[in-house]
Amino acid sequence: MVKKVLIANRGEIALRVLRACKELGISTVAVHSTADNAAMHVRLADESVCIGPPPARDSYLNIPQIVAACEISGADAVHPGYGFLSENARFADILDAHNVTFIGPTADHIRIMGDKIEAKRTAKRLGIPVVPGSPGAVTDDGEALKIANGIGFPVLVKASAGGGGRGMKVAHSASELSNALATARSEAGAAFGDDAVYLEKYLEKPRHIEVQVFGDGAGNAIHLGERDCSLQRRHQKVWEEANSPALDDAQRAKIGGICADAMSELRYRGAGTIEFLYENGEFYFIEMNTRLQVEHPVTEAITGLDLVHEQIRVASGQGLSAKQSEIQFAGHAIECRINAEDPKTFFAPSPGQITHYHMPGGLGVRVDSGVYQGYTIPPFYDSLIGKLIVHGRNRTECMMRLRRALDEIVVDGVKTTLPLFRDLVDNPDIGTGDYDIHWLEKYLAAKATN
Amino acid sequence: MVKKVLIANRGEIALRVLRACKELGISTVAVHSTADNAAMHVRLADESVCIGPPPARDSYLNIPQIVAACEISGADAVHPGYGFLSENARFADILDAHNVTFIGPTADHIRIMGDKIEAKRTAKRLGIPVVPGSPGAVTDDGEALKIANGIGFPVLVKASAGGGGRGMKVAHSASELSNALATARSEAGAAFGDDAVYLEKYLEKPRHIEVQVFGDGAGNAIHLGERDCSLQRRHQKVWEEANSPALDDAQRAKIGGICADAMSELRYRGAGTIEFLYENGEFYFIEMNTRLQVEHPVTEAITGLDLVHEQIRVASGQGLSAKQSEIQFAGHAIECRINAEDPKTFFAPSPGQITHYHMPGGLGVRVDSGVYQGYTIPPFYDSLIGKLIVHGRNRTECMMRLRRALDEIVVDGVKTTLPLFRDLVDNPDIGTGDYDIHWLEKYLAAKATN
Repeated sequence: MVKKVLIANRGEIALRVLRACKELGISTVAVHSTADNAAMHVRLADESVCIGPPPARDSYLNIPQIVAACEISGADAVHPGYGFLSENARFADILDAHNVTFIGPTADHIRIMGDKIEAKRTAKRLGIPVVPGSPGAVTDDGEALKIANGIGFPVLVKASAGGGGRGMKVAHSASELSNALATARSEAGAAFGDDAVYLEKYLEKPRHIEVQVFGDGAGNAIHLGERDCSLQRRHQKVWEEANSPALDDAQRAKIGGICADAMSELRYRGAGTIEFLYENGEFYFIEMNTRLQVEHPVTEAITGLDLVHEQIRVASGQGLSAKQSEIQFAGHAIECRINAEDPKTFFAPSPGQITHYHMPGGLGVRVDSGVYQGYTIPPFYDSLIGKLIVHGRNRTECMMRLRRALDEIVVDGVKTTLPLFRDLVDNPDIGTGDYDIHWLEKYLAAKATN
Repeated sequence: MVKKVLIANRGEIALRVLRACKELGISTVAVHSTADNAAMHVRLADESVCIGPPPARDSYLNIPQIVAACEISGADAVHPGYGFLSENARFADILDAHNVTFIGPTADHIRIMGDKIEAKRTAKRLGIPVVPGSPGAVTDDGEALKIANGIGFPVLVKASAGGGGRGMKVAHSASELSNALATARSEAGAAFGDDAVYLEKYLEKPRHIEVQVFGDGAGNAIHLGERDCSLQRRHQKVWEEANSPALDDAQRAKIGGICADAMSELRYRGAGTIEFLYENGEFYFIEMNTRLQVEHPVTEAITGLDLVHEQIRVASGQGLSAKQSEIQFAGHAIECRINAEDPKTFFAPSPGQITHYHMPGGLGVRVDSGVYQGYTIPPFYDSLIGKLIVHGRNRTECMMRLRRALDEIVVDGVKTTLPLFRDLVDNPDIGTGDYDIHWLEKYLAAKATN
């Protein structure tokens, strides 16, 4: 087992990793910016090293400083958390060159999955379902119609050189296709100097469903079911569930099995998440994250597995602690991301001192947070200050428990997203689980105009 | 389902019950003494009624005041928590006469189990193992020896009219018996004016193991496994575990089955705990508690069942939510009772204001507490201020997690029993689960003389 882990992150995930290390009897080194001297994980770590001032590029993203901190402290492993350097292949390579264990996948796997085109090609090769589309640019309208009929309408006409929504048109039927092609080509030509367009299946109301996978790097891989993270604002997840209200056991076993088999073939090492759009019973690969996710606790709640323990085990060459046949999914879990943002002013960040802080307790309630009463939230970083994770024997019980837990939370002195969750938990669509990736944006827009 | 529950208790258990009611969508009425105006459950309840000053006999034990609070608030049910009126048959009768549902067993069952002799007789009749002994007083030494040989040495000679340890002698062998009889008779005659003595099996190093039972009052009953509460100080439980480190699955199923069958025959309603001494593979009935126990969360942790939900369901005539075959025991849980007492001064109570308060979070950690930063612990009541409950996939994981959770807790301004738990979690006997009901007293005595 690794002996001393340097935690190259801050906030709740730094504390999360620290807890796992303590539970495994591993020493901890916190690195922190000058803005994070008083952070909880710094207080609780066995050692701490200041690695520079904010912003992050001068400290949490400063690879030489972090490597120096490893050398000073004698850390033999680094846990990168999420964000920052967690998906930086060069960082993994540099640690490797310094004989420090990177608690994550190989640099090669990070590289492959970090490149969108390469990731999609790899996913396809491994049997993971991807969004169907034309093999390349389409120049002939008759050929385009044939392909569109093969994919099934609606289809999206996209500029090959495109981005930012320009040169992008939806055709809902054959009759709309040639117009869409013409318009997209013309927009693409004007915007990018290249009128090549291609076709992709258009998903109208997809859900975001992601599969948690784990590999030991030697070809053994398991899946830990899925999470439904469809409730998003500006592509940021806000509320996550496991299992997805949209899947049944057979669907879960099927997509999970596909993902685990793919990771086995890839000889993937550590924790990973394969993200899909999901519509009408079909999964479409978006991307793979080669790290721990913010929302991993909902998976922990329903499986009982500590994912950071597993990461450390695998990085130490000890393999996974459970076989696929030993993984059981018990009950339902929901996570709410508590951000220091004001829902009433379009989620403007609200840093400052927390004057009162009280977290809920009782059965089925977990809080992951690095803040405390009297703590001052610095203005330099992500506004996530805590996560409330609630577990129940089924989704109904989970929602009831979430409602009462939200009633108990006190975070005074700063604005938070708690009022949003108190609204959501009483919303009928959320109650039935009937939402897609556009739901929250529409809900917020409707609220803003009321 | 009952509509509005009056919570006839205070502290962490009042909050515990309140949470369950909220989760079931039931309105809550807090009753409180003048010393508990600022209590958490009072703040969170839908309504609250002050029922008098401390001490408890003028408020929490004042039946007319509580009945009046039911009438004022329109509560149709009362949850008594533990302690106070929870095992008061007259209280159950009076509520019944007022058409208020008592969330607990029938008054008759409370009466039967509240009378030690009647309880033991009933247990024996229902097939629950009891401590073997002479059928009544023994007057003839030859007859006594025959009975003692039947029971097996060591035996305890006890004054029939006894109490407080007087007229009580242990005989470890036949040769010690007549001396023990003579001494016990003489002490008993001097102390109680009655020299009648009887024999009972003497347990040298028993564990305290209790079985959680639940009945629907219609003859359906289940058991939820056992809790090991051997770590006690002055007969007060300090640390509780589920499952017991001393039992295997077969023993659990056997004693649990006996208890469930007994409750089925009794047509027992609600939650109950059948307490045993356990030695050398045998169980010996001590008593039955006809209420929720302080340590119920360890059972909740390993079964996923919310015991207060079940109590309310059963009291509402809805039956239990799970059959015996659906109950699974997952992992291991430990509860530490955090008392505002100073372990360094023989556990002297330490009321006063909590100046800093921070509870641990993360996977597998539950806190049940009614206090908060700035709260003043009044000097009038039990010193329990919170319970830390930790769950892991096995006992080793649970202990590792407990250790790190104890590292994180902050309760400043008053003395607490937290330092004791920080010692215990590192003790080798506790590590292996090798302790009996005398272990903690001996440990504390040895520490005091060091």
